[in-house]
Amino acid sequence: MRTDPLKTFHDMELGARAEHTAVVSAETIRTYARLSGDHNPIHEDAAYAATTRFGRPVAHGMLVAGYVQTALTKLVAPGGVSTGYQFDLLAPVFEDTAITAQAVCTHLDPVTNRATFTITVVDDTTRKQLISGSAVVAFPKGEK
Amino acid sequence: MRTDPLKTFHDMELGARAEHTAVVSAETIRTYARLSGDHNPIHEDAAYAATTRFGRPVAHGMLVAGYVQTALTKLVAPGGVSTGYQFDLLAPVFEDTAITAQAVCTHLDPVTNRATFTITVVDDTTRKQLISGSAVVAFPKGEK
Repeated sequence: MRTDPLKTFHDMELGARAEHTAVVSAETIRTYARLSGDHNPIHEDAAYAATTRFGRPVAHGMLVAGYVQTALTKLVAPGGVSTGYQFDLLAPVFEDTAITAQAVCTHLDPVTNRATFTITVVDDTTRKQLISGSAVVAFPKGEK
Repeated sequence: MRTDPLKTFHDMELGARAEHTAVVSAETIRTYARLSGDHNPIHEDAAYAATTRFGRPVAHGMLVAGYVQTALTKLVAPGGVSTGYQFDLLAPVFEDTAITAQAVCTHLDPVTNRATFTITVVDDTTRKQLISGSAVVAFPKGEK
């Protein structure tokens, strides 16, 4: 069992941030396709992708957004649990792209013990923004 | 290369729907944890989870939300690509839970060639709603 100290609402501060960097390889995309059952050819079929405006395979949006949750875990867990997301998928993420997901605390609600985060994913090479949105994390009540 | 006919905005109708059913096993959760790098103990550490209000390990929210994208793919791909999501994680998804993700078309915008879907995930056994939200799918412009 983990013995890390439990994170609580009171550990959060406006401006607190966490990041997670990953490379979205073709193998990652294939593994996620198998795991989710989402075999949209835009993700795995290079010949089909070449006929689209993207030109080559792109990662599943929810796979990329998942790295935001990974970043949040570094900041809020164990203890905080995400309860909602809103995000726009601004640009495609191609195979072998190195990306960084970031979450920054922008709102604290001491009545509900929830923290809101601005979330972004950027391409590490081009600095292009790939995802923009927000996430809400709930902390246990009745604990300091 | 896939030879399925391309889905276009004009194939969408208000009320059009698609579903995807899956069982969220402990192995699925472990695989997703490795893939995403999100090793929050609430997902993989039964002893830790037993000390929380959940009582046992729960699936990553973004893993569960991913099944919505799998349902959408059945309805809109090849052709349509999701460009945004908004959803609340209403209840935890425990190991070995059978769930159904559903997307229902609720809005069509012929100016932008985008369709909006109400999205839900429910527990197949208890019928409890686990996720509620919306998704936007963009279709290629300049194609019939």
